[in-house]
Amino acid sequence: MYQLNEILENKVINKLILGFERSPDQLNKPHESDAEIIQLNDNIKLAITTDSISEEISTGLYDDPYLIGWMIVMVNMSDLAAVGATPIGILISEIIPKTFSEEKIKELQKGISDACKAYDTFVLGGDTNEGGILILTGTAIGIIKNEKPLTRLGCKPGDIIYSSGKLGSGNAYAISKLISQTNSFSGYKPSAQIKNCKIISNYASCCMDTSDGLISTLDQLMRLNNVGFELVEDWEKIIDGNSLQYAENNHIPPWLLFAGQHGEFELIFTIPQDLKDSFLEEALLTGFEPIVLGIVIPDSKVKIYLYGKMIPIDTAFIRNLPAETKGDINHYLKLLLEYDSGLKNTPSLNFTTH
Amino acid sequence: MYQLNEILENKVINKLILGFERSPDQLNKPHESDAEIIQLNDNIKLAITTDSISEEISTGLYDDPYLIGWMIVMVNMSDLAAVGATPIGILISEIIPKTFSEEKIKELQKGISDACKAYDTFVLGGDTNEGGILILTGTAIGIIKNEKPLTRLGCKPGDIIYSSGKLGSGNAYAISKLISQTNSFSGYKPSAQIKNCKIISNYASCCMDTSDGLISTLDQLMRLNNVGFELVEDWEKIIDGNSLQYAENNHIPPWLLFAGQHGEFELIFTIPQDLKDSFLEEALLTGFEPIVLGIVIPDSKVKIYLYGKMIPIDTAFIRNLPAETKGDINHYLKLLLEYDSGLKNTPSLNFTTH
Repeated sequence: MYQLNEILENKVINKLILGFERSPDQLNKPHESDAEIIQLNDNIKLAITTDSISEEISTGLYDDPYLIGWMIVMVNMSDLAAVGATPIGILISEIIPKTFSEEKIKELQKGISDACKAYDTFVLGGDTNEGGILILTGTAIGIIKNEKPLTRLGCKPGDIIYSSGKLGSGNAYAISKLISQTNSFSGYKPSAQIKNCKIISNYASCCMDTSDGLISTLDQLMRLNNVGFELVEDWEKIIDGNSLQYAENNHIPPWLLFAGQHGEFELIFTIPQDLKDSFLEEALLTGFEPIVLGIVIPDSKVKIYLYGKMIPIDTAFIRNLPAETKGDINHYLKLLLEYDSGLKNTPSLNFTTH
Repeated sequence: MYQLNEILENKVINKLILGFERSPDQLNKPHESDAEIIQLNDNIKLAITTDSISEEISTGLYDDPYLIGWMIVMVNMSDLAAVGATPIGILISEIIPKTFSEEKIKELQKGISDACKAYDTFVLGGDTNEGGILILTGTAIGIIKNEKPLTRLGCKPGDIIYSSGKLGSGNAYAISKLISQTNSFSGYKPSAQIKNCKIISNYASCCMDTSDGLISTLDQLMRLNNVGFELVEDWEKIIDGNSLQYAENNHIPPWLLFAGQHGEFELIFTIPQDLKDSFLEEALLTGFEPIVLGIVIPDSKVKIYLYGKMIPIDTAFIRNLPAETKGDINHYLKLLLEYDSGLKNTPSLNFTTH
């Protein structure tokens, strides 16, 4: 676990679960999939996942009750999508402050209800408590119909990396909410890839959502699969228009929209070269247009073409930075910008042939 | 829903779920069972439940990390037991304060691990966040093998009410932690009835755990089934020895150990008269000794034999009192003691014949 433990978040998790026995019916090991995968009987595999929204509220990142309601369903559905599961439903535990108005509660519940409708799923139950600040915990369950469940494991050098959609809105939104002296960024309302995940799970060699941003996702896939990723030269095309404009207006290097750790909940997945044509054919039939990000390489590095050269990014530094800067968001951004400046002086690397 | 809505907690829940659509695969309606029951396919029913531990920590009721870890598994397993489910596992979301020591985290995780071993189950996954105070949310899933799942619905007048074990320790413990000038009460470590629930689910007409104390449980069953309950004359035998002694030492009328809303997680269930013998026979074979509490009556009242007469208890008053007294625990106890004094002057009632 040396490689995984280089990332503080992985280390914390590994420490917490150290004394726990694993279920003999669980098909994934820790870190290996976005949702837990349980073999229920010969024919049925369950996917189950839990996610809380608390730090996002306490830091002020989420302050709109409707968005919070939407997100508690969406983040959990996104984990189900990443293992190719069809949702059965969600349970939601709500800790609500006394001071939270009736109007806000209505908005919160409307967000939950709308998200359930969007994913054709249902609130099955929940729990309610009073507390100092609003905290929501969702637990979603689904069924996996594929023989071989989709996990974070399985990509090989040569596979093509795709994103289910354009990236950057999660971090553009986070900058606008958390960094003073930036303009507002509107329209952050991510969608879980419940619909497209069916096709993806038929072809992909591995999959993970960008809940923590693209670089965290690639870094984790790199550590788990012992491979690397090289992003295509014209990676600016991967960023959605509003977010790119927003970064430019606020003098933020666009690639930092991949580095921040508030994601857009797209699926990052890899397709073996020989399956590419049939995958794209089936995808296009449903109107799904996946975006090529780059290629899987043997060398365990994440490389981006920046400032006229292919640069290996210090993804461990980027992933550990929020913990290292202890929640001081301005200091965090300052160090990221310094890292970016440093890259301009990095010697160039040869391209991997592909 | 008039009858259910008389209880503030039910009213809050009904308001929260007002705009939510129900899953066509869900076999229970709101309030009707301790865990949600989902028809997965022709052969399989899933039970799923979520419970947070937050107010218990913020009020100081739980301050031992080991107990908190034990409880987050146990409370969720108890809900599975109440629907006769066999556990598959649990997911736990932990919000941990920065100030929480390594030592305390170890104790917390040990409590979780020990409880999982006790119920032959597993932590399947989880989520970790930093926050102001410790909050745990567990979500347990299980499988229901019975054709007809056990719920809170189905008891009829004449059925016998049982408890899976002696009662009172939850409230004796709560008094010791929350009321100043009381002595300490040790040994509160409740067990979920995962083992005994198999036999119970083969015979019982309804079932619910005492997570909120006996009177809350009987009140909710009364409202759902449109029946009442009459507790046996020698109900003091229902209270476990330590708790009875504790109440007497602290000058608290023993029946108030049923009224407080911190339970002991026994199962309260009803058995039709004609199944009683076979139920007891099967129970005794496994060493399970259920305790008779009383009988189901047609009149929608909870009656206890107190101060030489059979008294209908104002269970709505008792259930709503924590909310009415807004967390002022000394005021809460004062009003309960005043209510008890009032009962001494209540005119006597005729016994229901049985």
